[in-house]
Formats: sequence, C-alpha cells, structure tokens
Amino acid sequence: MPGPGGGDLARLRQLNERTVLRVVREAGRPRVAEIVAASGLGRTVVEEVLQSLAGRGWLVEEPAAVTGRGRPARAWRFRAEAGHVAGLDIGAHGVRAVVADLSGHVLATVHERTTPALTRQKRLRTAGAALDTCLSEAGAPAPWALGVGTTGQVDATGRVTHCNAIPGWTGLDLAAHFRAATAPALVVVDNDSQLAALAEHRRGAAVGVGDLVLMQAGLRTGMAMILDGRLRRGSHGAAGDLSLLRGVAWEAAIEHLHRCPDVPADVPGVDRAERAFAEARAGRPRARTAVRRYVRAMAVAAATAVSVVDPALLVVGGAFSRSADLICEPLAEELSRLCSSVPEIRASTLGAECAALGGVALALDGIDRRLLADSRGRLPDLGVNSL
Amino acid sequence: MPGPGGGDLARLRQLNERTVLRVVREAGRPRVAEIVAASGLGRTVVEEVLQSLAGRGWLVEEPAAVTGRGRPARAWRFRAEAGHVAGLDIGAHGVRAVVADLSGHVLATVHERTTPALTRQKRLRTAGAALDTCLSEAGAPAPWALGVGTTGQVDATGRVTHCNAIPGWTGLDLAAHFRAATAPALVVVDNDSQLAALAEHRRGAAVGVGDLVLMQAGLRTGMAMILDGRLRRGSHGAAGDLSLLRGVAWEAAIEHLHRCPDVPADVPGVDRAERAFAEARAGRPRARTAVRRYVRAMAVAAATAVSVVDPALLVVGGAFSRSADLICEPLAEELSRLCSSVPEIRASTLGAECAALGGVALALDGIDRRLLADSRGRLPDLGVNSL
Repeated sequence: MPGPGGGDLARLRQLNERTVLRVVREAGRPRVAEIVAASGLGRTVVEEVLQSLAGRGWLVEEPAAVTGRGRPARAWRFRAEAGHVAGLDIGAHGVRAVVADLSGHVLATVHERTTPALTRQKRLRTAGAALDTCLSEAGAPAPWALGVGTTGQVDATGRVTHCNAIPGWTGLDLAAHFRAATAPALVVVDNDSQLAALAEHRRGAAVGVGDLVLMQAGLRTGMAMILDGRLRRGSHGAAGDLSLLRGVAWEAAIEHLHRCPDVPADVPGVDRAERAFAEARAGRPRARTAVRRYVRAMAVAAATAVSVVDPALLVVGGAFSRSADLICEPLAEELSRLCSSVPEIRASTLGAECAALGGVALALDGIDRRLLADSRGRLPDLGVNSL
Repeated sequence: MPGPGGGDLARLRQLNERTVLRVVREAGRPRVAEIVAASGLGRTVVEEVLQSLAGRGWLVEEPAAVTGRGRPARAWRFRAEAGHVAGLDIGAHGVRAVVADLSGHVLATVHERTTPALTRQKRLRTAGAALDTCLSEAGAPAPWALGVGTTGQVDATGRVTHCNAIPGWTGLDLAAHFRAATAPALVVVDNDSQLAALAEHRRGAAVGVGDLVLMQAGLRTGMAMILDGRLRRGSHGAAGDLSLLRGVAWEAAIEHLHRCPDVPADVPGVDRAERAFAEARAGRPRARTAVRRYVRAMAVAAATAVSVVDPALLVVGGAFSRSADLICEPLAEELSRLCSSVPEIRASTLGAECAALGGVALALDGIDRRLLADSRGRLPDLGVNSL
C-alpha cells in the first residue's frame, strides 16, 4: 500500500492544528505535557503545532503557576482576545448589542429604546448604530461573527418569515442586511426566544440541563426549547409558536397588569407592568389579583409546552423574570393542576441581555463550525483579523 | 512506551468482533473484500474474526450470487435465525404478541381480546399465554429479549406509574413480572404509544423522518414523539400526556362516534366507532357529522403537540387509522386553523400490531446495546440460545 501523499500530509497537519487548538481552549492554561496527553499526539508534533499556531496569533505561551522547584513551566493559552463576536437583539421596544471576545467574555453592551411604530429602515439603522457603538466601546475592530435575534419566526436562511410585533418586519432578509453591513463577518439570525434559551443553557439558569423550556415573560411573550442539549427550532422554525392555539391567550396576559387599578393612570404603557409588580410586592390586593391573573394566563402556555415535551426545567425569562419572587410559586401551583409532571422552575439569571448573549453564543458556534469542525484548509493568520 | 498487554489484546479482539458483526448485519450479504473495506481492518484479521464468529453461530458463509467467471465468491450473512425477540402490547381491550428473528422479521403474531374489567392477575396471565402461544407458533424457544408496551405512564425501571384505563395497573412492576416469567431474557417496558411511534419510525409510515408526532386514534388515545430520530419520553416519562390540559378533551372525542344515531342501538360498544366510520363512508349525514366532530376534538390535541414541537410529520395511528380516508383531510384543515405550520399527515402502515412491533424494536435495541455498544466480554456461543 502506498504511504500518504502530500495532500494527506497537509490534511493531517490541519487536523492536528485543530486538535491542539481545541485542547488548549478547553483546558484553559495547559502545559505541553497536558496537551500531549489530552490530544493523543506525540510531543514533537505538539511542540511543532504550538509554535506554528503561536506564530499565527492563535495561541500564546505564558509562564505557568509555579508548583515546585526547577525552571518555571510553560503554559499555553488560547488568545480569546485575538478576535471578537457580537450579539444583537432587535425587538419592538428596543435594540441591544453585546460584544464579546472569542471565549464569550462580554466586553461591552449597548441598549437603545425604540417604539413599536419605528419604520423598518430606522430600526435597522438604530441596530447598526448600537452595534457600532458597542464595538467601539469594546475597542474591537470588525467582529468575526454576528448573531442576530429578532421577534418573530426566522427561517434557516435568516429571513423573517412572520412577525406581528414589528410593522414591516415580515419578509425582511436580516441575514443579508447584516452580511452587507458587516462583511466579511459570519452572520447568523434566529428568533429571540430561541437565542435566550441558548444563552440560559450556555451561561445562565440552565447550565448542564439537557431538557428545558424557556418562557419569555415581558412586554413580548415567547417560548423556546432545548431538548437533549440542542435548540429545538422545529421542522419549519415554528416550534413553540402557540399563537393560533385556542385557549392559550398568553399574548394578552399582560393586559391584566396594564389594567391594574393600583397603577396610577399617568404611568406610561411600557412601565405599567413593572409598576403592577411593585404594587403587588407592596401588598396591594388589586395588584396581587392582577399578578395572579397574569400568571394564570401565562401558565396555560407553559403547561401546554410542559405537557408535550416534559422538560426537567422551566426557565422564566424576559424582563419580568426580575419579579420571579411573585411569579414562580403561583406558576408552579397552576402547573400542578394542568400537567401530570411539573418541572423545576427557575428565573433567568441573564436578564434583559439574554437574547443578545444568545446571539453571541450562536456567533461563537458559527466560528467553531467554520474553524474546528470543518478541517479543510489551514487556520488563517490572525494578522488579518477576520475569517 | 510499552506495547499493549494481554488485556488490551483481548479487548481489541472483542472490538474487532463487534465491528465485523455490525458490518455484516448492515451490508446484508457482503463478500470478504467488502467487509475489509467497510471495517477498516486488515484482511487477515477479518478472515480470523469471520471464522471465529461462524464457529460460535453468529455468521454463516454462503455462496454469493455469481457475477462473473471463475470460482464462486463467498458471502457472509448474519444468522438472524439464531435467536428471537418478542413484543407484547397489553391494553384494556386486548393483548397482542409478536415474535421476530434478530433482524426484526416477523415469524408469528397472536391477538387475544380482553375486557377493561379484567383483573390484574388474569390480564398478566392472558399476556403470558399469548406470548407462549406466539413463541410456539414461531417455533422459537425462549426469546433473547422482550419489549412490552402498555397503556399508561411507565418509568425508566419498567414500572407503571400511572394508568387510568386498566384497573389495578398503576404501581405494577411490569419489567419485574416478565423478567421472572422469561428469565434470562432481557425485558424492556414502555408506553404503548411510544412503542407505536418507534415502530412507525423503524418500519412503518415514518421511515427516514427525523421529527414526528404520532397520535393514537382508537378506543384509547395517546401521543408520542420522535425528535431528531430518537424517542422523546420526557424527563419524567410524561411527554405527550395532555390528560390534565384544559380544552384538550380528546379522550372523550370517541363519544361523538359512540353516540352516532346512524349506528343501530344493538351494535356493542367496542364496535360502534368502526360502524360510525362505515356509515360515514356510505354517505349518511349524521355519521359524517359524528366523524367531523370526532376529528375536530382530536385535532385540538394534535395541534397542541404540533404547535410545541413543529414536527415534519404527523402519523395517525391506532385502530381508526384504517379510516384515514375520513380523518386525514379534515384533520389537516383543522390544523391549518390551529397551528402556524402544518406537518404532512400520514396514516399508520402497521395497523393494530404497531405497539407490539415497537416492542420488537425496543427488544432488538436492547440486544444491540448489550452486544454491540458494550464491548466488554466476548460474544457468547450461540449453542446456548440466550444472552
């Protein structure tokens, strides 16, 4: 049998590069001996690959913590600062941008309020400006990848197929728009609730939980699922869309809070719900009734998803997750009446930036797919700060 | 570095055995050269393993179809006839047994009608007798593995945690019962709808479909899901249990058929629904109305599952799937009103034996897990016809 040809050798080198890069990223600050052990490669090969990756800006050699006598050991670190990713969350009431390094460490965040009535062009411009401001605050040049979340249904190509909450949004090719605006960055787009679930699973209330339903409770409602550790988008991107289901009137649930008689008439619409929670927390009976009715209406939606997929965890996300003290207990009570099996209930730990952080996670996944899973081609030289 | 020790060599041989066995099973009747290519093992190793597996009854060498001149090539075949598995479906109205070979080829089936009022002990005895009759008809000694399906919720250990349809069934440890009765066979137990979904996915209406919801339409209702190619049982075995969900009155849907005025009063309860379908097919207006109302009630349950998980396919299973000509079209119409995305709808192709065939699939999976995934220990000698 003939030995490996030149093409095979190049491919072997590319595979080795990715193996070493993955081992260093996952281990944090491993020494060479640890990289050798974890990679299954020979020491000579590992040393060679480390030098090569360092020369191209992917890794850096630093002194390790001294644990004994003798010369200080060398440790290797993934240069998370070598590139940046961004997350954007575009909703009816506002736009959020987050910029992070290649390890997902957040460097800057920006929030701009908008009104639901804003035109498509103005909303896209507001989002673009928020992204630019955020990148500039983070001291980041262009991002390698951008993850965009939006209200409504998004297809696999990144086009908004259906959106009630933002006028003129249905049919918009968000991926194409941001590809043009941020080229050559990788752009990925998804529904905001799905990104929120992804973020809670990666870094929030649901780390290590394989099966969860996330219910967005805020000015907008939404539902998303992680099943077997993976985001369940559905065969047509419509998983968790309960909008046409009779008896599940959760999108109107917020009206119980808006109409609460304990909230003074001059409190503006966007603040009324939060004020109702505050009044309920202060013990006012009519506000407590309004919250109870709100939770009861939301519980029907939660129970629908819980009965179908039977998750281990229900995460209450969205802006109202700040009032989890008033929501989680009555929600559990309602679920025990409506479901044969009640999951644990936790409030989001990521708050209002949840969907934008999900965008960051999606962007990082996209980079991993391009760089690590696909082993064709050599890793680029990071002197050029892009993919 | 020292070379592999004796333990490593034994383990390597076990891995090679399983690789060759898997390759032969999947390929059907491969020649040695094909086994060498598909296994990635050397020809000498493959020849050695083939002889060893043939000596122990797992494989048999047969003449291959002659494709050219020269001496006839040898082909290898997995001895599916070397062992048997059985599937049992225990419901309120009857018991079904299926016996198959190690490739899932059905050798015999038995059906015994029961009444819902039958006691626990008598029902278990009926099931045991049906299994024995079926094994005897198949000419099979003891099965290697038994997959049991039952109405109600079943936990991971094979205990019935909740069952409304069969009196005295809740709390029954079905796995322990059949382990004692069929030792040393491997016994696995699951909900009957879940087994039906498994069967449709493996050999029925849903082969090759990654995401599907199965709705059982018959004297009993039920719901099960395959997501990403795997049975979704839920974190507490309660996935698809809509029994407490308000507004989903699908368990009572059959009353529309039972009360149909076009069905003569002397038709007994268990046959009234089928008769109502027959009258509707004959064009009788009151029977058509009854079927329409039945489908409308079932559609609410289907829409609930479809809205949450957005599957590619909805399979209508159960005894009434024989009347798919009257069900599927109005069901699709109802779903288009209740869901933002309507899946393809197909009728079961496996009919009344669906859940028992799912038991066969579960039993075969159990054997594969024991023999192929777990590579500790040598494959047994099939002179002893058990695991």
